[in-house]
Amino acid sequence: MSANSGKHRVVIIGSGFGGLFSAKALSGKDVEVTLVSRTGHHLFQPLLYQVATGILSEGDIAPATRDILARDKNVRTILGDVEDIDIEARTVTSRSLGQQTVTPYDSLIIAAGAGQSYFGNDHFARYAPGMKDIDNALELRGRIFGAFELAETTTDPQDRERLLTFVVVGAGPTGVEMAGQIAELSHKTLAHEFRHINPRDARVVLLDGADQVLPTFGDHLGGKARASLEKRGVEVQLGAMVTDVDGTGLDVKYKDGSTRRIEAVTKVWAAGVAASGLGTMVADQAGAETDRAGRVLVEDNLTLKGHPEVFLLGDMINLKGYPGVAQLAIQGGRYAAREILGRLEGKEPQAPFVYKDKGSMATISKYSAVASIGKISFSGFVAWLAWLAVHLMAMVGFKNRISTLLNWMITFLGNNRNERVTTMQQVFARRAMEDLGPDAYPELPRRGHEEQRDAT
Amino acid sequence: MSANSGKHRVVIIGSGFGGLFSAKALSGKDVEVTLVSRTGHHLFQPLLYQVATGILSEGDIAPATRDILARDKNVRTILGDVEDIDIEARTVTSRSLGQQTVTPYDSLIIAAGAGQSYFGNDHFARYAPGMKDIDNALELRGRIFGAFELAETTTDPQDRERLLTFVVVGAGPTGVEMAGQIAELSHKTLAHEFRHINPRDARVVLLDGADQVLPTFGDHLGGKARASLEKRGVEVQLGAMVTDVDGTGLDVKYKDGSTRRIEAVTKVWAAGVAASGLGTMVADQAGAETDRAGRVLVEDNLTLKGHPEVFLLGDMINLKGYPGVAQLAIQGGRYAAREILGRLEGKEPQAPFVYKDKGSMATISKYSAVASIGKISFSGFVAWLAWLAVHLMAMVGFKNRISTLLNWMITFLGNNRNERVTTMQQVFARRAMEDLGPDAYPELPRRGHEEQRDAT
Repeated sequence: MSANSGKHRVVIIGSGFGGLFSAKALSGKDVEVTLVSRTGHHLFQPLLYQVATGILSEGDIAPATRDILARDKNVRTILGDVEDIDIEARTVTSRSLGQQTVTPYDSLIIAAGAGQSYFGNDHFARYAPGMKDIDNALELRGRIFGAFELAETTTDPQDRERLLTFVVVGAGPTGVEMAGQIAELSHKTLAHEFRHINPRDARVVLLDGADQVLPTFGDHLGGKARASLEKRGVEVQLGAMVTDVDGTGLDVKYKDGSTRRIEAVTKVWAAGVAASGLGTMVADQAGAETDRAGRVLVEDNLTLKGHPEVFLLGDMINLKGYPGVAQLAIQGGRYAAREILGRLEGKEPQAPFVYKDKGSMATISKYSAVASIGKISFSGFVAWLAWLAVHLMAMVGFKNRISTLLNWMITFLGNNRNERVTTMQQVFARRAMEDLGPDAYPELPRRGHEEQRDAT
Repeated sequence: MSANSGKHRVVIIGSGFGGLFSAKALSGKDVEVTLVSRTGHHLFQPLLYQVATGILSEGDIAPATRDILARDKNVRTILGDVEDIDIEARTVTSRSLGQQTVTPYDSLIIAAGAGQSYFGNDHFARYAPGMKDIDNALELRGRIFGAFELAETTTDPQDRERLLTFVVVGAGPTGVEMAGQIAELSHKTLAHEFRHINPRDARVVLLDGADQVLPTFGDHLGGKARASLEKRGVEVQLGAMVTDVDGTGLDVKYKDGSTRRIEAVTKVWAAGVAASGLGTMVADQAGAETDRAGRVLVEDNLTLKGHPEVFLLGDMINLKGYPGVAQLAIQGGRYAAREILGRLEGKEPQAPFVYKDKGSMATISKYSAVASIGKISFSGFVAWLAWLAVHLMAMVGFKNRISTLLNWMITFLGNNRNERVTTMQQVFARRAMEDLGPDAYPELPRRGHEEQRDAT
């Protein structure tokens, strides 16, 4: 089909912010667009922590890409893992099950994002899941709620303490939001649901190697965020490097040289990202450079060295120190689409890409957030309202997610968490907890018939 | 704790309708209740098909048991698989990970429900998941939406046809509802989302060994339901026995002796149930009889032969031909709780348990249902309204599930499916589809550089 229409063929890899905004910018134009993605959904990643903590369902933050693009008739979507990009032959090879698809392109937009990075310690992943995709969030949901369940039945005080200690590694927005939500869960939502344990006894620790929380937000907001977290019962440890992670805890080394072990069954890794390997794949072919996180050093118009028809976006690029945020991908996607369309119309190249900082925000808990927009920074309830408005607008932009808004409202009015189901993920969650070891749970002495009858 | 309070100890196994209504009926009374369950949630099973077809989220139909029972201070909930029931020692042994818990009881209520039955053909399960729990529903969701995805990219017309054929085995309420929803998905929701396939071409087949759909609803309503399904594009085949199931289809034998193979990647098994093995476990100890489906032939007060302190409920019992519906469990749970409390107060035993039929209902699609209440039967929009009212009331009864109602309303107003995410389940879904075999997806000829450039 592609080869026959004669139209300029654009292939987009990825259904994140970059891929989706590229596709939308090319919609209705005289080009033939194919979006290839590993998942059938677009993930609204800024709210992933709400799935992990039971507020929203997967569908609330991950609408089907096909649904979002249903009316964009010149855009087709195919599900597939990209196995190969051949920048000489100009083809993308993807696979979905046994089924391999080779899609030729005239222009290529690579927006495959980033995964979690454990800084070379990949064995941490088993014990401390990241927060990059829906599977991560559901696994963490299972682990977090499951830890309280196990704490309720254990008879060993030490295990109970380990089960009721939650450590979040990385005090960027995701880490701050996770720590705040786990504290809220234990102090409010679950407070009255148990009989043997008091969920309010849960200890929530937030670690970061830097000297402040939210390092990119500046001293002032970082301090505000820290105070707000501490008020909510989160223990903040800064200048703290994780040196090892296992099933029952983690080892931490502090800037002053001291070391400490924190006993904790549930760990969340919100510390680092590594760009998709597709960046390195094309950089190697083109002789372009990549940085340690696998990001490609692109030209100033977001293209690959020597390949003006190949664009890279968002988390995959290293350009002028731009941060790996959604806006970088969105602005990059629009820029790339404009450039492709401009070339077809014989226009001059655009000026080099410049990222416009639209500000950053992070929620700490219900009604409390920090925000910095340009030179203005604010915190508390007003910041929370701003956060809400921005996120609602962003989500409603794609699709009318009324039910998401309503779920939010309901959760915000009460302290409930409606999405607490753990399914296959529970198996993973439990497996992680088994690292406590079989000896950690000695069989209870089995009470005999006599003893029971005496007791009644 | 249990042994010390001196109160009468009731252990309830299961968090389904029977277990939950037993617990609620014992709430606030002078007994100490422990509810042991394999899952942390109560499953509102009548709406499971809506999770499988993307309308509702897991949390919408599966609230946390602990949350439902938060205010019932004399009820504690523990998560665990029951490994052993010792009716002489009067203990229940459950396990959650390595952690084993032995809970002694004075009265025991076993309400562990039923699982899917493949009538001795357990190898069917791999290819045709049942519809009993959330994992089933999510796996089927992944398979159903995944089949359309694979159909979009396959180049083999025969595979495309197999991928667009959906077979539902069993024309009880669940099967009818699933077939109706898959038809609605393909004809409405997905109709405009694909570029290569037309989802309206999907074939939905509903099979049953009986001579009518909804066999327990009587001829009249069965006929109505069949007509309504056929109007919506569902192909109904009756007197049809499934003799084998594999990755790419199933073999069917009809009452007239003929046989046929239906090529279909996605199969749903809604055909039979087998009671939890805990029934057989206690029946064996007590010398009580069980039927072929593993249900226990209980005394007329729902107790186990020779053990008036052990009650069995719902899908686990075989008594006077009562049907395995939610109401049987609910009424049984209330009866058992009354009996336990009556004994403590020195009351006479109640009259034998009698199931009160409150009617049956099944939806076929939006705005269309069949219902039979006593001698009155009705169908169409009025029946659908009745179905809606009954289900809303039942759910709101447990908890204020405003967000569920809103999700419903939004879905009913549009044709959207907001819950289309497939995660770990996708892996299973895809694995099943791989049974098409590697040869089914030959690599596409890889187009060369020249050919592409020619095309633009």
